[in-house]
Amino acid sequence: MSDQRARAIEYARQNREIFLTNLKHLVSIPSVSTSSDHKAEMDRAANMLAGHLKRIGMENVRIFPTTGHPVVFGEYLKAGKDVPTVLVYGHYDVQPSEPDELWRTPAFEPSVIGENLFARGASDMKGQVVAALSAVESIHTTTSLPVNVKFILEGEEEIGSPSLPAFLQEHKDLLACDFALNPDAGMIAPDIPTIIYALRGLAYFELRVYGPAHDLHSGIFGGVVHNPAQALCELIAGMHDETGRITLPGFYDRVRSLPDDERAELARLPMDEMYYRRMTGVSQTWGEEGFSPIERVGARPTLEVNGLLSGFTGQGSKTVIPAYAMAKISMRLVPDQDPAEVHQQLLRYLEQKAPSTIRWEVIPMAGSPASISDPHHPATQALALALEKVWGKRPVYKREGGSVPVVGDMQKTLSVESVLTGFGLPDDNLHAPNEKLHLPTWYKGIDALIHFFFNLKEYAQK
Amino acid sequence: MSDQRARAIEYARQNREIFLTNLKHLVSIPSVSTSSDHKAEMDRAANMLAGHLKRIGMENVRIFPTTGHPVVFGEYLKAGKDVPTVLVYGHYDVQPSEPDELWRTPAFEPSVIGENLFARGASDMKGQVVAALSAVESIHTTTSLPVNVKFILEGEEEIGSPSLPAFLQEHKDLLACDFALNPDAGMIAPDIPTIIYALRGLAYFELRVYGPAHDLHSGIFGGVVHNPAQALCELIAGMHDETGRITLPGFYDRVRSLPDDERAELARLPMDEMYYRRMTGVSQTWGEEGFSPIERVGARPTLEVNGLLSGFTGQGSKTVIPAYAMAKISMRLVPDQDPAEVHQQLLRYLEQKAPSTIRWEVIPMAGSPASISDPHHPATQALALALEKVWGKRPVYKREGGSVPVVGDMQKTLSVESVLTGFGLPDDNLHAPNEKLHLPTWYKGIDALIHFFFNLKEYAQK
Repeated sequence: MSDQRARAIEYARQNREIFLTNLKHLVSIPSVSTSSDHKAEMDRAANMLAGHLKRIGMENVRIFPTTGHPVVFGEYLKAGKDVPTVLVYGHYDVQPSEPDELWRTPAFEPSVIGENLFARGASDMKGQVVAALSAVESIHTTTSLPVNVKFILEGEEEIGSPSLPAFLQEHKDLLACDFALNPDAGMIAPDIPTIIYALRGLAYFELRVYGPAHDLHSGIFGGVVHNPAQALCELIAGMHDETGRITLPGFYDRVRSLPDDERAELARLPMDEMYYRRMTGVSQTWGEEGFSPIERVGARPTLEVNGLLSGFTGQGSKTVIPAYAMAKISMRLVPDQDPAEVHQQLLRYLEQKAPSTIRWEVIPMAGSPASISDPHHPATQALALALEKVWGKRPVYKREGGSVPVVGDMQKTLSVESVLTGFGLPDDNLHAPNEKLHLPTWYKGIDALIHFFFNLKEYAQK
Repeated sequence: MSDQRARAIEYARQNREIFLTNLKHLVSIPSVSTSSDHKAEMDRAANMLAGHLKRIGMENVRIFPTTGHPVVFGEYLKAGKDVPTVLVYGHYDVQPSEPDELWRTPAFEPSVIGENLFARGASDMKGQVVAALSAVESIHTTTSLPVNVKFILEGEEEIGSPSLPAFLQEHKDLLACDFALNPDAGMIAPDIPTIIYALRGLAYFELRVYGPAHDLHSGIFGGVVHNPAQALCELIAGMHDETGRITLPGFYDRVRSLPDDERAELARLPMDEMYYRRMTGVSQTWGEEGFSPIERVGARPTLEVNGLLSGFTGQGSKTVIPAYAMAKISMRLVPDQDPAEVHQQLLRYLEQKAPSTIRWEVIPMAGSPASISDPHHPATQALALALEKVWGKRPVYKREGGSVPVVGDMQKTLSVESVLTGFGLPDDNLHAPNEKLHLPTWYKGIDALIHFFFNLKEYAQK
């Protein structure tokens, strides 16, 4: 190991408590992007990160307003023209914490219990952002950065990054780079370092069904109106057939089929039926016939009901026919599905299936295409070696079921690939109560990112 | 008209403003029985009614505690042994007011707008209770009551009267009577006085569906678990077939078929497709094939979704697979269905249809059988003549779609029939925002009840 590299690693190991304290400060801020009530908290988180970027040697640090939440930027360009420029992506917004009563410790009061830090955003992805900042700090404080680095930290990832495409377009020159590092992915297990080469896209909708003009007494009117809650259930029930396939017209037309060699590769991942039962607590998995669990999660599209609301939902009984019923419905998309086309497919399904006894409307909430990238990209190889160095084994290559719209946006606007990694674990309770971060894995992740930056320079010099 | 009768009617007409003020006081109390938060308000309403009973000459006025909300009792027995004793039933509890934001005036701040009084309980049924009290007051103040009268006012009707059967059993002697007057029904239109001879029963359940152990990220786990919100929708969708019939096994086995002469009678009611469209605001009605709207509402059982709740229902989007989904589901029953059997039928349906990928449970919330009574009962005839006297036309006889469990309970425990009437209208928004009472109809109702009490004595003396 070079002296520089060794000094940076040593610094990182000695400053783990300080890195953790930095992370605790960041996760204490309820920067929930979906609600307009949290504007001030979003600004606080952006300001804290701007300060952090300055402390670790970033220059030209700026907080850019957008039509939504601000984007934080900083750069270090002193490594010269002969080495690559890496754009580190992150997001400082988090999912809502509700249902709060299911958290064992308050969502925005970080609590270390055993080897884990519990807090909303600890894993997704404030922890990953602070890991990257800590890796850069470790190098910057002990020597100088071997490559050029830019940070772009957005505040709208959890709501589908609505402002980001325009921001990327407008600041193309400022963001110019050789590739992006996106640590918003995760690992399969603490001992299996993971590189993600594909992501699913997302199409998210609110489906609203309207029945009578107002809530009705179910005794006086039960038998003459089509109950909108029942009609909504009928529409949702029809969205899958008995083999678990989605019935929206044309939904599978653009789905890229999975090559046999890739199926063989995916089959080697330790993520079988038992794994998913353990992770989810179900006694039996479910999904599209003809595909394994890991294929269904990574390489096949899905449709989920994310929420249902209608009528009386309080304690006790109320004999009401609701006037209105609502479902949040989202599809995870794979290459080469197009979210705008999926919107049209949903509308066609409803036009064909919705009865004339009710009225309906669809509100599109978020949409992004899937992405798939080249595992042989030099930056990916630099990352693979870094992970191998720290964990002592070669990483696995995996398709990720989640969506990182920015990967597609960067490919489109900045013409760069993203290298995806991350040090969260599948049981981190992302988007759920009791989100946590496994600290031993996180500390290894900081070390790995330090190696990654050094490897990048060595690659460039080969 | 007898002098006595004329004086009572005259008194009622001169005191309409006072009767309305009494009603306003009563509807100002949020006596919502379904929530345990309203205990103090229930007691306040009971106390107010006990005071009212004393003021209008009732003796032995008592507030009986029960395991739930109290029962208010009062009696006048000085009319002698030669005349009938009528037990006037009422309830002082009301439905919850939510969703409060849809009320144009606050639910518990009574507001007279035009000819209507707006308030929760104005029509169902504090208005009907105050109508009966006002009729008795008018007679008591101007002369003496021609028949013996007992009042029983309960506080649990809107939650299925759980304490009432035991109360009736325990106080059989105190409640002894020739028949009951139950003004918890309503009229078809302001110019159509109505007598109800049949009521539907109720079986109300909460169906809970459990999926994964906790909420999951729909990207990471979408494709491997059966979404409980989807499974709930599938179960609900299967509860009706394409002809609008309910599919629970054996559900129609005990349904009494509708005789041709009764179908002919019901067909004469001015309640056709257009009527129900106007009342509900739907562009097209819905229901079991082969039956007219009035038959479906009065003489056929129905199954309604009263509420749905699962996952994320706030503003914006949250990509969650919910761990849990809930529906409130109730059936309106007709003779001779049994609520306990319907519970078993629901369980059998779920045992047959629920997939092994989810867990479910059913919580029974309320149950009461339907009832049907003799339109030729002397008390019914006394009421028919009273209504004809005030409205100038013969009343119609109708099956009511709602449930009044106490009618069955009184039949069983006290061995008495109930005469059902009431002065609410179909557009009173019962159980919904903006409940109202049509005051001109209500004042006529008070006059009609005065005539009813006098008619009863004349009948008895024939």
